[in-house]
Amino acid sequence: MIKVSVLYPNADAGRFDMRYYCEKHMPMVQQLLGVALKGMAVDQGVGGGMPGAPAPYLAMGHLLFDSVEAFQAAFGPHAQTLMNDIPNYTNTQPVIQISEVKL
Amino acid sequence: MIKVSVLYPNADAGRFDMRYYCEKHMPMVQQLLGVALKGMAVDQGVGGGMPGAPAPYLAMGHLLFDSVEAFQAAFGPHAQTLMNDIPNYTNTQPVIQISEVKL
Repeated sequence: MIKVSVLYPNADAGRFDMRYYCEKHMPMVQQLLGVALKGMAVDQGVGGGMPGAPAPYLAMGHLLFDSVEAFQAAFGPHAQTLMNDIPNYTNTQPVIQISEVKL
Repeated sequence: MIKVSVLYPNADAGRFDMRYYCEKHMPMVQQLLGVALKGMAVDQGVGGGMPGAPAPYLAMGHLLFDSVEAFQAAFGPHAQTLMNDIPNYTNTQPVIQISEVKL
């Protein structure tokens, strides 16, 4: 299983509309990627490691797929549509990580 | 539910022993934190957003708790023990994010 994590940095004047993300963007992801998408999770940053420290990321979205190939095949045809939706919920530049799920 | 994510940056000469992490460190976390720990996940970085791009993080560990208070109460007494174990599997400086699980 692989996990595609999309991390939205907590930058100065960074904006992230969690409601739009959960109610519009992620359902759109689910609809467009179909059965290739094996699971999803959304985290909202609330803090960092030290008490009172800011969260490094405003939000993180995680998408599960059987393999990198399955992700690419499902995501490729809809990449432009999904990337065009990003300004509707954030002005930050997301960091993308592809991981192999170990535990 | 809150998620404590520990992100190990993919720095130059960064070392991360995934086997030690999964077989020794995370079981130690589980044993010390006990029932306060509601779930865990481990991801190994394999790539970034662009084809061939490196993963931003060598690894990510995620721990679930009922609340920030439950995390602090469980982690506090064992913080030093767990932090002392970090050099056994990595030479990187982890980034810590506390999130509220939204989806």
